[in-house]
Amino acid sequence: MDSCVIPLRHGGLSLVQTTDFFYPLVEDPYMMGRIACANVLSDLYAMGITECDNMLMLLSVSQKMNEKDRERVMPLMIGGFRDAAEEGGTSVTGGQTVINPWIIVGGVASVVCQPNEFIMPDGAVPGDVLVLTKPLGTRVAVNAHQWLDQPEKWNKIKLVVTKEEVREAYQEAMFSMATLNRTAAGLMHKFQAHAATDVTGFGLLGHANNLAAQQRNEVAFIIHNLPIIAKMSAISKACGNLFNLLQGTSAETSGGLLVCLPREQAAKFCSEMKSLSCGAGGQGSSGAWIIGIVEKGDRRARIIDKPRIIEVPPRGSPAAHQDNSATSPDANTSLS
Amino acid sequence: MDSCVIPLRHGGLSLVQTTDFFYPLVEDPYMMGRIACANVLSDLYAMGITECDNMLMLLSVSQKMNEKDRERVMPLMIGGFRDAAEEGGTSVTGGQTVINPWIIVGGVASVVCQPNEFIMPDGAVPGDVLVLTKPLGTRVAVNAHQWLDQPEKWNKIKLVVTKEEVREAYQEAMFSMATLNRTAAGLMHKFQAHAATDVTGFGLLGHANNLAAQQRNEVAFIIHNLPIIAKMSAISKACGNLFNLLQGTSAETSGGLLVCLPREQAAKFCSEMKSLSCGAGGQGSSGAWIIGIVEKGDRRARIIDKPRIIEVPPRGSPAAHQDNSATSPDANTSLS
Repeated sequence: MDSCVIPLRHGGLSLVQTTDFFYPLVEDPYMMGRIACANVLSDLYAMGITECDNMLMLLSVSQKMNEKDRERVMPLMIGGFRDAAEEGGTSVTGGQTVINPWIIVGGVASVVCQPNEFIMPDGAVPGDVLVLTKPLGTRVAVNAHQWLDQPEKWNKIKLVVTKEEVREAYQEAMFSMATLNRTAAGLMHKFQAHAATDVTGFGLLGHANNLAAQQRNEVAFIIHNLPIIAKMSAISKACGNLFNLLQGTSAETSGGLLVCLPREQAAKFCSEMKSLSCGAGGQGSSGAWIIGIVEKGDRRARIIDKPRIIEVPPRGSPAAHQDNSATSPDANTSLS
Repeated sequence: MDSCVIPLRHGGLSLVQTTDFFYPLVEDPYMMGRIACANVLSDLYAMGITECDNMLMLLSVSQKMNEKDRERVMPLMIGGFRDAAEEGGTSVTGGQTVINPWIIVGGVASVVCQPNEFIMPDGAVPGDVLVLTKPLGTRVAVNAHQWLDQPEKWNKIKLVVTKEEVREAYQEAMFSMATLNRTAAGLMHKFQAHAATDVTGFGLLGHANNLAAQQRNEVAFIIHNLPIIAKMSAISKACGNLFNLLQGTSAETSGGLLVCLPREQAAKFCSEMKSLSCGAGGQGSSGAWIIGIVEKGDRRARIIDKPRIIEVPPRGSPAAHQDNSATSPDANTSLS
């Protein structure tokens, strides 16, 4: 499970809690703060929890930064973290900061819930549909962006992508990672989700496997479609399957929710997610795509041979305003 | 306050939470794990809370350790942390581990409480007595122990202390830091404590000042006695007031509770703490000493000129079995 659930001594309540911290991966300290907070909250959202009673911030300040840089960078990072917490309806009331060779940023999210406030991630049934609420490819986008300044690396991919496309993909990845999965968590209740997890370090397939393994029923998850930030699959292929993006094991940071929904609810879930999509991080959603189905099986997940790649254009680009999500009839058809 | 207290949406309950992490300061990884856990729990105990619903462990593994050392050291540290959590009546159900240049160990303690389970640290009244539940001097002891192998440093203190005394003081400091303040937290309710805090990085005077500043009544804390691990005041003096131990600002790790008790309860509190004192870390207590009084004043704390130094012998030493705590008539007299 993404969070721990502790039965309390009081009136059927449970304490649900999660922690996560990591090292910065984008250059913008404010956005990095937002991403770190979104990433911590995501473990609650994966259980359909939309509230958070308290957030603690965990920080380490790099001893290698000079004082001027420290005073410029750290308040921005803290500010981003706080703003994302506020969007999550909570606030940062405590935490701890230490000096360390590297910067670390993370937090602890806690909420006390009644039983109807969370959805245990073990109720998938054959016939369910799998939905993903953020595109894949954040790690490829972050790396490709670093290669803009490394001619040797850049030469490997310059035939398949332009510098402008890499910059746009990086922006899209950053906004996507900073977007809270809170909207998706709310819609999990509205559309009776059976189970969910969030996609992070183990990649889509890794987390799909973990989720499949926890199911009460003997089910398997079959993934047909891979929504990926535009051009990232081309970059991955050009580099000989960089990070195994198309095999589903490329690490994501603060990725989307992978949700098991009743077949008759999935398209409505996607359509409502799409209508709430936001411009640039924070509240709202990054969209949602139907990516596969739940069958009877041995509690594992797999991606079919030659999955359909859904190229997700950067928000703000003209292409983003066309309906190219898997809620279109075409994508639904490909699964049935 | 040592912990954050978050009113919950459910039935008058509060979420009380605290986090702390730091770098190892003793050589024994198992004891280091115990100390880290005791240190986190201490913030709850300072509020008279004796239960903990959940503990998360935060760890970073040093990238500079080779695999063999890592496999030897980390399980011991985790084991010590878990054992201390178990003694605190809780268990470690989650957390996060990262790779880092330095080892970090810490945790997050959370509990959901009814209002009568915690004591807000703001009710001191003139006439109260101040009690401290662990001796001071842990930092001096840890440093002096490192000096055993540094002839230049050792020469500074060899006239006032023997190597054996330093080793005993280091053991005492280690056991004391690993002792949970849980017994003291329980006795705070039994003896109607008015306020408390735990003594850590700011030293006795720093934390006494913080506690005084939060009081509802206009009070001042006057400290007359300093219980200090045997020989540590001599070392501090020999080094020109090392760490300002006698000024009350030497940092402590996982120090005792500083408790404001009604005058008629303080001696009973100390006597019960003493009777529960333990051999070597963990449950029980390190003792308790009356160290001062609460007067009308400007919400500050001070140490009198020439405070009485109470030399606290290492547990296990013959001297430890004599009643030399401030519960003796002599010590009480010196305050009245």
